[in-house]
Amino acid sequence: MVNFNFKNPTEIFFGKGSVDQLGPALKKYGASNVLFHYGGGSIKTHGIYDQVVKALNGAGISFTELGGVVPNPRLSLIKEGIALCREKKIDFILAVGGGSVIDSAKGIGVGAVYSGDVWDFYTDKASPEATLPVATILTIPAAGSEASFSSVVTNDDGAYKRPLDVPVLYPAFSILDPEYTYTLPPYQTACGICDMFVHVCERYFTQDMENDLTDRLCEATMRAIINNALTVMAKPRDYAARAEIMWCGTIAHNNILSTGRTGDWASHLIEHELSAINDVAHGAGLSIIVPNWMKYVYKHNTQRFVQFAERVFDIKDSSPETAINKGIDALRAFFSSIGLPATLTEIGIGEDSFKGIGEKTKKFDTQKGTVGNFYPLTGSDIEAILKLAK
Amino acid sequence: MVNFNFKNPTEIFFGKGSVDQLGPALKKYGASNVLFHYGGGSIKTHGIYDQVVKALNGAGISFTELGGVVPNPRLSLIKEGIALCREKKIDFILAVGGGSVIDSAKGIGVGAVYSGDVWDFYTDKASPEATLPVATILTIPAAGSEASFSSVVTNDDGAYKRPLDVPVLYPAFSILDPEYTYTLPPYQTACGICDMFVHVCERYFTQDMENDLTDRLCEATMRAIINNALTVMAKPRDYAARAEIMWCGTIAHNNILSTGRTGDWASHLIEHELSAINDVAHGAGLSIIVPNWMKYVYKHNTQRFVQFAERVFDIKDSSPETAINKGIDALRAFFSSIGLPATLTEIGIGEDSFKGIGEKTKKFDTQKGTVGNFYPLTGSDIEAILKLAK
Repeated sequence: MVNFNFKNPTEIFFGKGSVDQLGPALKKYGASNVLFHYGGGSIKTHGIYDQVVKALNGAGISFTELGGVVPNPRLSLIKEGIALCREKKIDFILAVGGGSVIDSAKGIGVGAVYSGDVWDFYTDKASPEATLPVATILTIPAAGSEASFSSVVTNDDGAYKRPLDVPVLYPAFSILDPEYTYTLPPYQTACGICDMFVHVCERYFTQDMENDLTDRLCEATMRAIINNALTVMAKPRDYAARAEIMWCGTIAHNNILSTGRTGDWASHLIEHELSAINDVAHGAGLSIIVPNWMKYVYKHNTQRFVQFAERVFDIKDSSPETAINKGIDALRAFFSSIGLPATLTEIGIGEDSFKGIGEKTKKFDTQKGTVGNFYPLTGSDIEAILKLAK
Repeated sequence: MVNFNFKNPTEIFFGKGSVDQLGPALKKYGASNVLFHYGGGSIKTHGIYDQVVKALNGAGISFTELGGVVPNPRLSLIKEGIALCREKKIDFILAVGGGSVIDSAKGIGVGAVYSGDVWDFYTDKASPEATLPVATILTIPAAGSEASFSSVVTNDDGAYKRPLDVPVLYPAFSILDPEYTYTLPPYQTACGICDMFVHVCERYFTQDMENDLTDRLCEATMRAIINNALTVMAKPRDYAARAEIMWCGTIAHNNILSTGRTGDWASHLIEHELSAINDVAHGAGLSIIVPNWMKYVYKHNTQRFVQFAERVFDIKDSSPETAINKGIDALRAFFSSIGLPATLTEIGIGEDSFKGIGEKTKKFDTQKGTVGNFYPLTGSDIEAILKLAK
């Protein structure tokens, strides 16, 4: 087991009706003048907006609204939010929505208390040491941002999508009501399921051996995701299954599954550049990349992939190679069963982009010129994976 | 899934050499005048005491020592510690040892900032709202107190052993170095393994159904404990296995495995009264009580016990009754394989005590007059379980 430090201070309020805890929680965490940040307005259609406004008014908390977050949240709106926080003397940010809204709120939070350009944080030029506190009300179980130390932002200028991972980004608290996910479109539900599954994969596929408990916790989470995915697709108002998927999304990314190991994250980094090009949903991009990443790298630790096939999909075979391929096929079949794409062609990304994506992705680590840890990928490795996925 | 709130703010520093982080961490958490609390002196024999003193001196932190914590920590020493904190104007408590030392430190922490009798907190007469911050350096993986909101204390006067569970009891930080557990006597290692396993059982055996992820995380933790237990018994200096057992002990009791369900805790409450009588090690008492509690209650939810047998011990049988009994027998065999007792006779508790233990235990909940949630036990139910265990 690799040495680690772990602390996740985010308070979770989970379950139906948990929005009732919003007012008291905001007061407990010292909010008096809130930026209420959200996306395209679906929270207004589904009544969540009204519940939030009622809770804010009921608690006597003043607020300023900033809607308009888009999937793959943009740096430009974050800069607008930072200016608004300064102008209105905002002391707390409330993000209501999915990972994009939350990630945008986190960007605003660290930018509002920083004198330089917030993009510095996403390009390793500076590291944030403070933030306006952020709380979230989650409406899309997927990114895990409601209890993670991550924020992923797209710079409109150069179409770069970059992650920032630092402890100050853990939200103060998050409200998770599975009923808020009943009206998610099926494709968005499926993309979220893929995203959370891959958050576990990125931690599971490590070269750090002797990390038995974390392995088993990862496998448990993957099985729970698979076990509940078809139910939420078939019965969007099944509370029990929606609750499982929602809590899986948090556990997948709150870093408890990272303890004692180094993760990989190459698939995420490759996918970030796909969606920077054409705004493909993150989960859909991952469903294309991950099985092909697996095909490309499994030879660098076959034992790990045999274990994955056996413990996640109950696949046993006397030939490790066969077991591994059956495991990867089972994963493809799972993604397909919930309606996700399998090829780059399906999402309109052609071979002419492959070299560019490879070059852009590998620049993520300017020092090593590779991405990922299970097997460090060069630009041409990434190109080869994209070819497998075409 | 039952609604829940979850927040565990304890920072974990895990791995060999992590004592190097003690000085910086104490400073980060604002310690300037520390009560250094420990047990019978084994930390002096094994060099841990010297490392702690060096770290405290190196960080320029003044400290006062209070050793002498015994297993089933006593209220009398806690009162002594409270007086010492007031006299010396202590602002931080550092517990170095196992669960007893940590639980004692937690009692001192809440007592030092309370004007009344600290025993009020353990008898539901008052609830602590503040504490002196507590940090821990763990030497015995067992109680999980290093990242739990619990403290269990024995009142010497009436031989009552009572738990207190409140959020202020989460330690500020905990240092976990698996090498510190190399010199644990085998019996103590085994008792710790049983204690952590039962912490999972108490959460796993619930009547709250539809809690798939938490079920699977519990099963993962139980399997990891079983999978590493024999190795640590046979090879006490096996770092990998010691690390697994140590991290299992924390995960078993940091409340992540409680999410979405009501636990039981009857076995713990019964055992507390056993060890209040004759100072039997908590884990040894549990190894006697738990399989017999299972035999007594399984009929109230056979499906849950069938799942336990199958997913934890790979036992399948067309007859649920047979599967369940094989599962319970497998658990007995596991406890026996690491050298733990199976009967009350072995630890010198005779039938004449059974009625008294039953009466005392059920007084824990003065309103309902029963203990436990999976199946609420009356005094005579407890007597019947003790008879099964004799």
